Amino acid sequence: MARASVLNKLEKEIAEINRALGDNLHTHVPFISQVGQHILLSGGKRIRPLLFVLSARMCGCRGNHLADFSTIFEYLHAATLLHDDVVDAANVRRGITTANTIWGNQAVILVGDFLLAKALSLAVTTDKLKVLQILAHTTTLMAEGEILQLLHQRNLELTEEQYFEVIIRKTAALMAAACQIGAILGGKPEAQEDSLRQFGLNLGITYQLVDDILDFVGDAQELGKPVINDLKEGRITLPIINALARTSGADRERLAALAREPEPDTAPEILAFLDKYGSLDYARERARWYTSQAQANLNSFPDSAEKAYFLAITEELLDRSS
Amino acid sequence: MARASVLNKLEKEIAEINRALGDNLHTHVPFISQVGQHILLSGGKRIRPLLFVLSARMCGCRGNHLADFSTIFEYLHAATLLHDDVVDAANVRRGITTANTIWGNQAVILVGDFLLAKALSLAVTTDKLKVLQILAHTTTLMAEGEILQLLHQRNLELTEEQYFEVIIRKTAALMAAACQIGAILGGKPEAQEDSLRQFGLNLGITYQLVDDILDFVGDAQELGKPVINDLKEGRITLPIINALARTSGADRERLAALAREPEPDTAPEILAFLDKYGSLDYARERARWYTSQAQANLNSFPDSAEKAYFLAITEELLDRSS
Repeated sequence: MARASVLNKLEKEIAEINRALGDNLHTHVPFISQVGQHILLSGGKRIRPLLFVLSARMCGCRGNHLADFSTIFEYLHAATLLHDDVVDAANVRRGITTANTIWGNQAVILVGDFLLAKALSLAVTTDKLKVLQILAHTTTLMAEGEILQLLHQRNLELTEEQYFEVIIRKTAALMAAACQIGAILGGKPEAQEDSLRQFGLNLGITYQLVDDILDFVGDAQELGKPVINDLKEGRITLPIINALARTSGADRERLAALAREPEPDTAPEILAFLDKYGSLDYARERARWYTSQAQANLNSFPDSAEKAYFLAITEELLDRSS
Repeated sequence: MARASVLNKLEKEIAEINRALGDNLHTHVPFISQVGQHILLSGGKRIRPLLFVLSARMCGCRGNHLADFSTIFEYLHAATLLHDDVVDAANVRRGITTANTIWGNQAVILVGDFLLAKALSLAVTTDKLKVLQILAHTTTLMAEGEILQLLHQRNLELTEEQYFEVIIRKTAALMAAACQIGAILGGKPEAQEDSLRQFGLNLGITYQLVDDILDFVGDAQELGKPVINDLKEGRITLPIINALARTSGADRERLAALAREPEPDTAPEILAFLDKYGSLDYARERARWYTSQAQANLNSFPDSAEKAYFLAITEELLDRSS
């Protein structure tokens, strides 16, 4: 989402979300705010809270409380990032030193727990039990997704189906929940609530697919992390799964060896394989398909500013991968 | 709680809780059940679920669902233990190899997250919003308590007030919630709900005080961990706080040095200081006071089997410290 991003037109909404993210972090322990702010204010597109706010508004729900409630989705995401950084022993995220490098794993795990608890505390400000049920289920799915990803580390036998099982849980489920809960707060009938859930799910799948493609083709400056970072950390993503499935003989052996133990200077060779077997194009094709599904999920909604933003976001997301 | 423990009379309840703990662990990912069972089935007195079950029954709430609902309190506790073991780099708990030693920090953090999410999922099976609000608040307090404890590590300036601030959050808040929520499910008026919350809080404070005393005087066999383990891990507890406050001159310097860098063979010297300045007796006196408070919190309840169990538990807990 580069210069002419639709997100520029949502500056007011993003500013409101950022304000709420700071406000709701207040705690008895100032250190928590400090670590929380490091992770929360170190960038991020606020895509999850935005999905919620746009969905709620599209469904007729207005008011300042939307920004406050939207922080649930960013806090849950941030908690995952914090625990993820410990898991990955990551030193840099989005070009910024990770919290665990500064404060140690111990503090970071616990601040992640605090953000989870905070999200839960904000969630119970609604009296809609269904909202809480969705959030509880989503949190469970996210934990499962992270664990599955860990269990599949460096597993070159990973199937496409297993890959989708992971990304639906670790990424798409939260975006689906953000959109669905917006519809619930707007009091929409179940059919439309379900359409928005599906929209969030398909958008989320695209989001992760594009992220995984960019890990091979994006440069370190745009992504804030080195190329083939996923592979270095043992995450086998769709382009590699596809290439391994399409290769055989010496090519497969060589690609498997590279995927098993990647080095920075072997990136061009890996990319050459992905190119030769059309595996990045295959992943782009899947992303395109999920984007078209997401767009179709909005068919039953009348035109509105929010619907236009949603459509623009899906297009822009897809454009990043090409 | 040795041979003639009141817990022996609650064997049926404990068996029901253990059954529910296993049943509710079902997940899409078998590995999670495996790690979860390791931590959940490696002992533990199930004191938190028991407090909930007894409180609910004392307040007139019956039924099999109590055991299932009670697992919330054990899952929350187990999640804390898992994240705590990572934090402390602990290798042994209750005489059993810790999960992080077997499966690595990465898996254990994530399974802790899963247990938190699972507790939340079970909580939303109630339609009482107040229950969810209490649980959300309690989870926040517990995270704050763990973080405060970490921030106070090896802080010899720790005051008694700060010590209580930590133990109320990390231990007593969950026991208070278990008792209060039992009263809510039993439909008791707010005054009695509050009495049971206070009971759980005072019992929880005693529980942690006794645990901290036993770290100095209990033997490794009974506790399943080496003596002066807290000090080795940098946790400054009430006996040391009191002794440091009462000593001066050479005694204070020597005790501070020992507290700062304890070794297994300096345990007798530390104990001699605690003895000389009456600091273990002081901590026991505090435990006795909180026990009497807890017992007084039950005054407004008519006699019942559950009330008798509660009173027996408070007595037994206190007996352990002497």
